This record gives sequence, C-alpha cells and structure tokens, in this order.
Amino acid sequence: MASYHCPDSKTLQEYKDVANKIRIHSINATNASNSGHPTSCASMAEIMSVLFFNAMKYKVSDPRGPHNDRLVLSKGHAAPGLYAAWVEAGLLTEKDILNLRKIDNDLEGHPTPRLNFIDVATGSLGQGLSCAAGMAYTGKFFDKASYRVYCIIGDGESAEGSIWEALSFCSRYQLDNIVAIFDINRLGQSEPTGLQHDMETYRARLEAFGWNTYVVDGHDVGTLCKTFHDASTVKGKPTAILAKTFKGKGMQGIEDEENWHGKPMGGKAESMIEAIKANIVNQGPHTLTIQAPVEDAPAVDITNIKLSDPPAYKRSDKVASRLAFGTALAKLGKNNPHVISMDGDTKNSTFAQKFKDAHPDRFIECYIAEQNLVGVGIGCGTRGRTVPFCSTFAAFFTRAFDQIRMGAISQTNCNFVGSHAGISIGEDGPSQMALEDLAMFRTIPGSTVFYPSDAVSCERAVELAANLPGVCFIRTSRPATEQLYENEEPFVPGKAKVVRKSDTDTALVLGCGITLHMALKAADALAESGINVRVMDPFTLKPFDAEAVIMNAKATGGKIVTVEDHYPEGGLGETVMSAVAGERDIVVKQLAVPRIPRSGKPDELFEMFGISPNHITRAVKEVMKM
Amino acid sequence: MASYHCPDSKTLQEYKDVANKIRIHSINATNASNSGHPTSCASMAEIMSVLFFNAMKYKVSDPRGPHNDRLVLSKGHAAPGLYAAWVEAGLLTEKDILNLRKIDNDLEGHPTPRLNFIDVATGSLGQGLSCAAGMAYTGKFFDKASYRVYCIIGDGESAEGSIWEALSFCSRYQLDNIVAIFDINRLGQSEPTGLQHDMETYRARLEAFGWNTYVVDGHDVGTLCKTFHDASTVKGKPTAILAKTFKGKGMQGIEDEENWHGKPMGGKAESMIEAIKANIVNQGPHTLTIQAPVEDAPAVDITNIKLSDPPAYKRSDKVASRLAFGTALAKLGKNNPHVISMDGDTKNSTFAQKFKDAHPDRFIECYIAEQNLVGVGIGCGTRGRTVPFCSTFAAFFTRAFDQIRMGAISQTNCNFVGSHAGISIGEDGPSQMALEDLAMFRTIPGSTVFYPSDAVSCERAVELAANLPGVCFIRTSRPATEQLYENEEPFVPGKAKVVRKSDTDTALVLGCGITLHMALKAADALAESGINVRVMDPFTLKPFDAEAVIMNAKATGGKIVTVEDHYPEGGLGETVMSAVAGERDIVVKQLAVPRIPRSGKPDELFEMFGISPNHITRAVKEVMKM
Repeated sequence: MASYHCPDSKTLQEYKDVANKIRIHSINATNASNSGHPTSCASMAEIMSVLFFNAMKYKVSDPRGPHNDRLVLSKGHAAPGLYAAWVEAGLLTEKDILNLRKIDNDLEGHPTPRLNFIDVATGSLGQGLSCAAGMAYTGKFFDKASYRVYCIIGDGESAEGSIWEALSFCSRYQLDNIVAIFDINRLGQSEPTGLQHDMETYRARLEAFGWNTYVVDGHDVGTLCKTFHDASTVKGKPTAILAKTFKGKGMQGIEDEENWHGKPMGGKAESMIEAIKANIVNQGPHTLTIQAPVEDAPAVDITNIKLSDPPAYKRSDKVASRLAFGTALAKLGKNNPHVISMDGDTKNSTFAQKFKDAHPDRFIECYIAEQNLVGVGIGCGTRGRTVPFCSTFAAFFTRAFDQIRMGAISQTNCNFVGSHAGISIGEDGPSQMALEDLAMFRTIPGSTVFYPSDAVSCERAVELAANLPGVCFIRTSRPATEQLYENEEPFVPGKAKVVRKSDTDTALVLGCGITLHMALKAADALAESGINVRVMDPFTLKPFDAEAVIMNAKATGGKIVTVEDHYPEGGLGETVMSAVAGERDIVVKQLAVPRIPRSGKPDELFEMFGISPNHITRAVKEVMKM
Repeated sequence: MASYHCPDSKTLQEYKDVANKIRIHSINATNASNSGHPTSCASMAEIMSVLFFNAMKYKVSDPRGPHNDRLVLSKGHAAPGLYAAWVEAGLLTEKDILNLRKIDNDLEGHPTPRLNFIDVATGSLGQGLSCAAGMAYTGKFFDKASYRVYCIIGDGESAEGSIWEALSFCSRYQLDNIVAIFDINRLGQSEPTGLQHDMETYRARLEAFGWNTYVVDGHDVGTLCKTFHDASTVKGKPTAILAKTFKGKGMQGIEDEENWHGKPMGGKAESMIEAIKANIVNQGPHTLTIQAPVEDAPAVDITNIKLSDPPAYKRSDKVASRLAFGTALAKLGKNNPHVISMDGDTKNSTFAQKFKDAHPDRFIECYIAEQNLVGVGIGCGTRGRTVPFCSTFAAFFTRAFDQIRMGAISQTNCNFVGSHAGISIGEDGPSQMALEDLAMFRTIPGSTVFYPSDAVSCERAVELAANLPGVCFIRTSRPATEQLYENEEPFVPGKAKVVRKSDTDTALVLGCGITLHMALKAADALAESGINVRVMDPFTLKPFDAEAVIMNAKATGGKIVTVEDHYPEGGLGETVMSAVAGERDIVVKQLAVPRIPRSGKPDELFEMFGISPNHITRAVKEVMKM
C-alpha cells in the first residue's frame, strides 16, 4: 500500500472551496424547490468534497460502472448535497439541480435509482449500511475486485437497529473494503440526538462492534484525506470514520442551531451565500481531478438462468415446497455462478441449506437480523452483480417490510423466499405463522408473488424469479404434499392452472399451497354427493390471472369460493375479489384464518380456523345458494 | 440498600435442584408434544431457578398483579422452561405442562397472554427487551413503584437490531430497574452464533451501550444470586448479566452440541432424566419461598377516557388531521393522567409535540428507532398501566410490522398514529409516502383502522382509540383540509357517513382523507354536467360498514367508485370489494396509486397517479356504463 502524501495546500484549498460550493448549490436547490434539507447537506460538505475528489475512484462518464467505488448516502434527505457533488464532478449542472423535487425531474427529494448515479434508494433512515455491506461483500468475495464502498450515515439514523445489524455483519465478514462515515452533526429532526457530540461513546460502540474507528473533525479536509487513506490500508476490519460536524455548518445564524431541520433558507439565502462565497478562494471551476477505478470487476451474465436439471418427481411423492425451493436453488446455482443465497439462521428450515451444501462460497449466513438480511440482498444485487435469494420464515419478512418497500423504490431484483406459511406449521403457534405476508408482498409495486402448490411448480417459481425484474416473493409451506403437476408442466407468472374440471361444475374453488390440496379433498367429498366443482391454482397472486378466473367463474354459475392459509385481508380472497370487481353476476365467498390462531396439530387448526376440507365443502354449498 | 447475604448451602442446593427439575419438566413436556426446544430451556435453567426463588418479588396467586416484578422471556421458544418454573412456583402442575402445544391448552409453543402470567407474546426474536423497557420506563417514571423488570434474551436474537435500539433506550433513560439477562449458550438454530462464547466482546458492546455489565457463569446459582443482588443496588444505569451457558446443559450427549435446536429427546429422554435426577439432592418438593412484592404501584383507571373539551372548529377552518391528532391527544392527556405519548423524532411533524408541550412528563422521545418505539408502547400498556399512543410517519410503521403483528398476539391496547399518508405529502418523494400502511394494519387481527377526513372526526378517532381494545391505527394526512362535520357530530367505529347525497345519485364514491375531499370536488364538477353522485366517508376501514355501503350502492345503481391515496392492494378499494363480494349486481371501480410515485407537488401527483378529481370524474362516467 502506498504511503500517504498529504495533498498540497492549493489542493486542500480546492477541497474546501468545493465543499463551500456544495453548500451554495444545496441552498440554491432547496430554495428553488422551497423544501428540502440544506442544513443536513452543510454538515457533510467537506466529507463529500474529499470523497469525490480524493478518496473515491470512479468514472464520471459511467457513474454506475462495475469498477467504480460505490457511495451510498444513507441519510437520504441530504440528497441536494449529493447532487451538488455530482455538479462539481461534472455529471450535472448547477442549473439541473434547481429542478430539485420537480415532478418532471429525477432529482427527487430523496435519491432513487431513477438517477444514473444511484444504486439504492434511501430516505427511510438506517438502511444504507446494509445495502453497502451487500455491495462490499460482493466486491470482496464474489467479484474479488478492487472497488471500495463508502456509506454516509447520519447520527440520528444511527439509533436504528438496522445500522447495528449491518455493523455486526461487516465485522463478522471482515469487510475491509467498506468505510462508514458517520456525519455526527448533533441535531435530529425535532431535538438533539441522544448522544449529541459524545464522540467517545460512538467510538466505544463502533470498536466494540469490531470496526477500525477514527474520530475526526468532519470539516477538516486535510484530516479527512489522511483518514480515508489510512482506512484503505487496514486489513481484515471495516473502517468507521466518526466525523464530528455541525448541522448548518457555514450557514450564518443557523449553524448548530435547533429547529432548522428540513427548512430551506428563503430570504436568508442571499446574504448567507455571500458569506460562504467570501471563504472560497477559487471562485471559478475547480481544477481537481478524479481518480480512475481499477478495472478488475469481472464480466457478469445474469440472463437466461435455468434449472440445471428439470424437476424430477413422481406424482405420488410427498414433498414440501420449502424443500423444492432448496433443490431448485441449488440447481440454479449450478447453472449460473452469480446466483447467491442468504438466510437468517433458518437455513435448515427454509432449505437454503441445500444451496449452501452445493455452493458453500455463495451462501451468506446473515444470522437472526432480517432487516440486514434484506438490505444485504438488495446490495448484492446492485449493478447486476448477482442474483440474490433471501430466505427466512415468511412471518419474519414482516421484520423487514420497510427494507422491502425501499427495495422496490431501489428497483431491486432481489428475491425473497418465505417458508412456514400460515397455520399449517402447527404447534409452534402464531408468532411463527405467516398470515399477513401475502398482503405485504402484494403491496410492493411491480412485485411478483408466487404461491406454488407442489414441488414442480415451486422449482419453476424459483427459476422464474431468478430471471424476473423487481421484487419476487415465493411463499413456501412446511408440510409435505403430493405432486399436482407433471415434471414437464410449463409455468408462467399470471397464468392460473385449472387442476380439476368437469362439464357440470357448479362453483369455482381457488386455493394455494396447502389449501389447494384441501380444496381437492373437498372436491372429492362433494363429488360423492353429486356436486362437481372446478378447482384452480393461481400460481401467482401478482400478476393475477383475472381473465381465467372470470372465465371459469362464469362457466360455473358465477360462484367462487376462495380458501387461504392467511388472514382475510390482502391475500388470495381479496385478490380474487379485485379481479372480479368489475363483473356483475360473480359472487365470492372467502375462507381465511379469521383471528389469531394458536398451537395445535395442523389438521386440528384447519378445522378450528375454518379452512379445512369440511369448511370448503360447506362454503361451496352456501355459495351455490347465492 | 441491604448488604448481600449469600444464601446458605442448603438453599443454594435447592436452587440447583429446581434448575434440574426445570430441565426434567422441559424434557417431559417437549416429549409429550413431540416438538419444542428443550436444549434452549436447559441453558437457562439456573437463571430461571434463581429468578423465581431468589431475585424476583411476586405473588404466585396474582401473577399479573400490578406490584409484581415483571419477567419477559424474549427467547420465547424456551417457553417450556418458563412453564416449568411456574410449576416449581406452584401456579402450574407437572401434569399441566404435559399438555404443551395442545390445541385445547394455553401452554402454547411460544408464550402468549392467554396465560395469566404472560404480559407480552414472544417468539419472533429480539422483541422482548423493548417491551420490558416500556414496563421499566412505566415503573420508574409513571408508576414510580418498586417493581423491577427482568428480560431473558438469547444470544442468537441479540443479533437483532431491535435489541440494540432497546439497549440504547434503556441507558438513555437510566432505567436502573431493568435487568437484561443474556443467555449466551453459543449455538443458534442452524449453526453457532457469530460471537459464540466471546464474552468480552459482548461485555464491550453492552458497556458501550451504557449498561452496567456482569459476565458470569450462567450455571452457577451462587454467582447468579450475588449478581442479581448487585444489580439491584446500581443507580442510574440498567444492568446486563451476560451469562455464559451451554445449550442442552446437563443433557447427556447433547450439551454444547450442534443440531439439537428445537428437537425433543424422544427415546433419549428416559436415561437423560435419570442422569439429571442423580444430581438432585432433594427429590421431593422444594422448600424455597418467594419474596413478596412491595405493594406501591398506584391504582390506575383507564376507562371512559374523554376529550377534555369537544372539537372546536369552524366549517371553513383548514386543518390537517395530523394537527387535530395532536390537539386531541393533549386533551385526552388532560382528562386522564395515564394517557401517554411517544414518537420517533418526528413529533414536530406528527404533532405529538402538542401533547409533549401540555404534558412533558408523559411524553417519551424514542428517537429514530421505530421497532423499539412500538415495543416500548406495547410494554407501557401492559397490565393496564397506561394508554399509549405511538406516532411517526405512517410509512415508518412498516419498520415495525413484526412488532405490531406480535403486539396483536400480545393483546396490546397500544394505539398507532401514522402521519404523512400517501402522495399527498408531495415533494419528499416515495420513501416518505405511506402507501401500504392500510394494508398492513388491516391484516392485524382485531385491529381498528381509522382514516379520519377532517379535524372533528380525527379528534373523535383519537378519543375512541383510547378506549378501544386491540391495536388501533389512525392514519393522518399532511395537507390542511376543510371541515366536513359539525363539532357535535358523533362517530362510531364501523359506521360510515354519507357526506353528499341526492335522490338522483347514479354512483357511490368512497374516499378517505384527502381523497374524500377530492371526491367532493369531483361530485361538484359532475353535478355541473347533471350527474349526481353519492359520496361516503367510511371513517374506519376496519371494522367496515358493509351494510351502509351495500345499501347505498344498491340505491345508486350498484355502481361504486373507490379512490385512495394508497397502493391498490389491501386498502380502501379491496375493503369495499370484500364488503360487496357476496352481492351480485354491484361493481367496483378502484382508483389508487398504481406504481411507485415520485417527488412533485401534491396536485400534480394526484393527476399523474390517477386519484385527482379529474380521474374521479372520469371513473364515475366509466362505472355508469358498467
């Protein structure tokens, strides 16, 4: 590693000048939009200047190129400060950023990948470091490339537990290619932060979490240069730079004052900018250069990923869909070296273990920290470097709803596989039962929600998810169930399957997973008493095959029964209701878990909570009268 | 504080014996249910024994009495060990716990308040400490009582960020009445934990987080007695006991071995129990006593809470519902001294600030840590000690979906108030816009989901929430809107209001909050072209006034338009579809935010994302053709 050469005084002055220009741009942009957070930009102005012109290696012409260092602005509300740095780097113009927050411009209030220099959306606080950790893990272990990852974290957001999950993850995996910069400006939105400027407590916490840590004056460009250099020489540990800063630094009458969060300067701007300009030595364009990246990130192809071998089941095989997930994921990993898997200490239950057994170098154990699990997955997937599959109990993805929501804004292609759906898990009880996961994943814009009902369709769901854009969710089940499909059956998202049909069907029953099997049992029982029903497997709840449902409902007297191992809201039933809402003459009767369940045997629970074959049989008889 | 007297050797032996009996009960119970986690019980057996018979003060006859010390088993999967301790305490029998996990018994796989000795459900890991912190905060600052709070945390779950949010909270508020016991048994579910038995790293982390910390042998009852005593003498700091333990301790061939998580002993049980019994000196019932609590928790009445003054608005006043929330909450606080408020550094946006201004001693700043915010709220509400209102941006409650879900299982009465609903917030962009919160809160069993559309109805929603059981959610809006109701208007959950009506209405339009105001604008515009529509305000989405919707839909040709500032899934539209699913001859056309929105002015966004008055007008004309 090269020894450190301090930049000359002219260069240091240029860094200072750029920092002050960033302040001015931030004030101007937020004044133009009449909203935004200029004081939060001011505290990090020197950090941005030194990052962009001293520490980071990147190509301005290709801001999301594979070889570049990555930068995640976790404190996303300081977006104008980031945009301002890109002005100084030459990607944007001063005029561009006066369009901040305008509806026809991508320079939004918080960064999103609509901009070509953003990897992950931020703005819900405390999430950036997990994404950055995923990028760093990818750089170190998958790409084995030189690029480094920087993440700027606000002190307010450092109260988020997700930050501490990510900190723990980075030291666990010795990610010496990540630098977390804490912009400790003392002030939150509504009052000072809990720790204010207690730098030594921050230091103790970071060191205890296994980080190489520097406490610095965050407004001293010389110190920042030296610190970023020192960080680059550290092996086996991530580095945290704890930068003592002041909110509104350099902004007359505002610096370090409360009640200035998220407020543009309005009429104060002019004199404030004059005062800042007075500190700028080189009023013209800076003469700084940007370091080029080392171009050693490998080419990656993540298209056309296939199961290395097709599903291979006998119709009589009883296989849990969670097991089929593990089988399929291991096959995908054999087909494409960029498929990766991560799990939160449930791999022996979700069967991600099968992927780990086959491809140990591509499995990441994230321990019991689901927010970070999801964030790491999203980070690993940026710039198309990997195809990530995150798995845990479906119930525990509720822990990361905010991360998944932000993942959609981040345009992630990360895939989520949740096992142990519903009351069918039995004795463990309601805390472990996913009964709201379908509602959650359905709300995610652009999501694909798979709910496979046998091993064949589950393997195909996993294969499809690997190739689909956007958030994919696959809900898997704990119990082993029989096969419904031949190994050759093709599956398409948004295309339902009729799994039982006659010419005299008097109702249409839709089920998914365990409830599809119960619907088939109910159909058998009904057939014995002379009532034929059609049974349908939607395969995906989103997109949903409204056309097929309407057609089959009309063919069966406009009578639908839905049965789901989920609460009544937002799952299969409401999906079907939504599909037929525009149709007169179709009625829907919904069976779902109506209240908090309890421990018990699965069959007892199906009976007690109204989704057993007996209940389906009764519901069909009732809907026939409607 | 009394000086420490070590229990005599006979008593210490009895503690050891009780620990071993807890092991035996746990093995027997999980063998009877053929599922469960005996090895996770064994590691904490001595901790439980000393807690129940040395450290804790409580009445066995009144296990949830107000004066008792509280115990939260955050590692809920060790439930049989907790039940076993209650056997030794005399509340349960050995026979009772052989009904573990049976459907007709409340001794579930993970603890829930169906049992009279449980305050909060656990089983989704990492949540117990936040709840315990809420109890401790309540004990110290509201009840000002002697009771103490104990929380047992697994080492696996200590990777959850929520634990670190709670740790930070406890030291911030100097909760010297809480003791967190970390049962560091080295092994997670699928592999060893990240830190295994690295006790000094745990110590450094806990100390950096401001905790008084002891590292102890968790199987040494004498040390545990002394440590709990020492903890009770510490002022101004919470105490952590880092107990080095072994998973499966005392279980022949299993102790400290991998691959024994969540597995009953089956045929190994008999000889294993024989070996454990050989270490028990007193094979008969123990002769230990339990310390009585100091009876100094005040009587609390949280019934019949009312606004101290009725709403006082002019019809022309433009008031944001978020502001009305703050006004109403301050009034409730004046009426009842047990109403409390907490927020995550957004109080100047949610207007919880108004409560803080009026009742500073009853406001808890939880900083930017929404999981802990929710957990603290749930904890504060246990045993009916307070009526908690948690507020933040509605979008950020997604951060705590798992906690809210567990809150319902915990039978909490905690109230959640989420501001900044939907795209109506404007320029801040999608990260700050709640567009999935209604779907989330609707899934919560027993929840009440309020969506008030003016200040009068919002004040009444707050008042109703204070008195209702279960999870209540109130969605508030950022923009100021006109009043729709007189100050005297009564409101009832599940009762909708018709806000515009004629004898010639040709469609029914439902909106909430900002979209109700836009529906009224659309109705005005339609009236000008001779089309009358009925407009309805549901007030609550859950319970939902299906009867009124069906009646009014039938009166308007069976044509419904719904318009919501929310994604299409799980919100107003699907609520209405669900309400009319059993009706032929009613069609529903839904307007909702169809994809990820962006920064912009609210009116521009309404237009771009399809929920403006123009879109409503068009939708009415379309539905009239259906």
